[in-house]
Amino acid sequence: MPALVIDPSHVAAEFRKALREEIAALPEPLLLVGLIAGEHTAAHTYAEYTRKGCDEVGVSFDLRHVPKLDAEAAIRAANADPAVHGILVYYPVFGTEQDRYLRDCVEPGKDIEGLHSFWSRCLYENRRFYDAARTKKSILPCTPLAIVKLLESCAVLDSARPRPLEGRRACIFNRSEVVGRPLASMLANDGAEVVSFDIDGAQVFTPNAREQTYSVQETSIDRSTALASADIVVTGVPSRSFPRITERELREGAVCVNFSTFANFDPSVTGKASIFIPRVGPMTVTMALRNTLRLYRNAKS
Amino acid sequence: MPALVIDPSHVAAEFRKALREEIAALPEPLLLVGLIAGEHTAAHTYAEYTRKGCDEVGVSFDLRHVPKLDAEAAIRAANADPAVHGILVYYPVFGTEQDRYLRDCVEPGKDIEGLHSFWSRCLYENRRFYDAARTKKSILPCTPLAIVKLLESCAVLDSARPRPLEGRRACIFNRSEVVGRPLASMLANDGAEVVSFDIDGAQVFTPNAREQTYSVQETSIDRSTALASADIVVTGVPSRSFPRITERELREGAVCVNFSTFANFDPSVTGKASIFIPRVGPMTVTMALRNTLRLYRNAKS
Repeated sequence: MPALVIDPSHVAAEFRKALREEIAALPEPLLLVGLIAGEHTAAHTYAEYTRKGCDEVGVSFDLRHVPKLDAEAAIRAANADPAVHGILVYYPVFGTEQDRYLRDCVEPGKDIEGLHSFWSRCLYENRRFYDAARTKKSILPCTPLAIVKLLESCAVLDSARPRPLEGRRACIFNRSEVVGRPLASMLANDGAEVVSFDIDGAQVFTPNAREQTYSVQETSIDRSTALASADIVVTGVPSRSFPRITERELREGAVCVNFSTFANFDPSVTGKASIFIPRVGPMTVTMALRNTLRLYRNAKS
Repeated sequence: MPALVIDPSHVAAEFRKALREEIAALPEPLLLVGLIAGEHTAAHTYAEYTRKGCDEVGVSFDLRHVPKLDAEAAIRAANADPAVHGILVYYPVFGTEQDRYLRDCVEPGKDIEGLHSFWSRCLYENRRFYDAARTKKSILPCTPLAIVKLLESCAVLDSARPRPLEGRRACIFNRSEVVGRPLASMLANDGAEVVSFDIDGAQVFTPNAREQTYSVQETSIDRSTALASADIVVTGVPSRSFPRITERELREGAVCVNFSTFANFDPSVTGKASIFIPRVGPMTVTMALRNTLRLYRNAKS
């Protein structure tokens, strides 16, 4: 039976419908500020997706264009403005380590991308709430969260169970600080054993028996061995030279997700995979909107 | 008259003597934890410098070796241990953006390197104190602070004046987040106009007339123009291919500082410079020790 191919925009539409109802019931309108710094042409496309998402869920979107070197001041202004509920910076701004500094300039309480080091620490320490009363849920980064929600949507992951991925194996090709590493952490926190590949080598995230934590080790496991036993395969390699994953490499019934803008899977995989999700984009924007609502609720609770 | 060549170890010795007296008078001994992660051979040399510095000022030094992937847990353990007053991680650990995550794992109150994004924000917003009562002085990153203190030591910069570098021009070759950009910010906060060169182009940091702030713009100014009018020239280019700065390029009486492990100045510069500081290293370690004392005092005040 050929794989079920999931269009993330359909899943996103369900989430957006629910978000629209919740947002309409709020006592005030939500405002999201998008920030394009410099001549960042790719950002305009992403900003259009954001605007469309905002329109669909009933959030106001204010897109601001500033010179690169004014990005920090623009972030501070949005941080200080009580009318602004969420801030979305279109990276890269400088394309250097200075971008990491900018990420941390966004107030965690308005960081709908979940990229501030405050949120990273919550994730890597598996602190799902960040207040003592356990009423304020931590913010997760949008693309990893989008992937987890897509897996949930096709019942690969059942969040009702305490460790929804216990006994499952995952394999992720990408270990960036924005997607691959947080995703590996999220899947391991949920109980999966995760092999993480990157140009720096392979690592294995092994869930601990007690508590929802994991340990990470370097591993000599290779691509073919990891793929042969992986229930879930996620790719995000931004390169044409990455040898596409083929049907022959997969375990029968594997779930395949590609979040790269390049096709990291060969079309043949639909012959062996049970589910194939060729892109994630529309869900990423949706998760940013979901985070906006969550941060608003956290601030008011 | 040939340039005065400053040996930073002599300046560092003065600082260490003063630190030793202050530390001896504290009610408890100070403990600094050094962390070497993985097979990081260069780190052993730096760690030896740290140990020597600690011995000289009377701080205990506990050097811990851990596998790379245990660095985060080791940082957390040191954060949580009330007997530890300062943490020094020898970078690179991963050599990827994950190192930025590790930097932010160190508690700001134990971050004697001044690299946590909390301290970066204090610096870039020129908040010299971080409490409302203005009793707790912010921590500055070690190498930029070392350079400023070296400039003070040879009376280039008089910290008794409110804007010690007003009317002066500086030129910095390096805009890393660890040294070049914070240094440009510090000199501009002190009143200097700073031209900052990096592979990404040139920027000019212009002090504002009111308040101790500055603005940053991209600039088309080139190396020869910037050098011809620079009172202070600081280099930190980690490459042999960087064309060394020669006597002919300098303004008469310029102050030259090199913090790269490569010689970025041609030896001829001593014919035209008034002061030449060929390396900074010993002062960097000393500033880390000074920060340890400051953080201890801040915690107790």
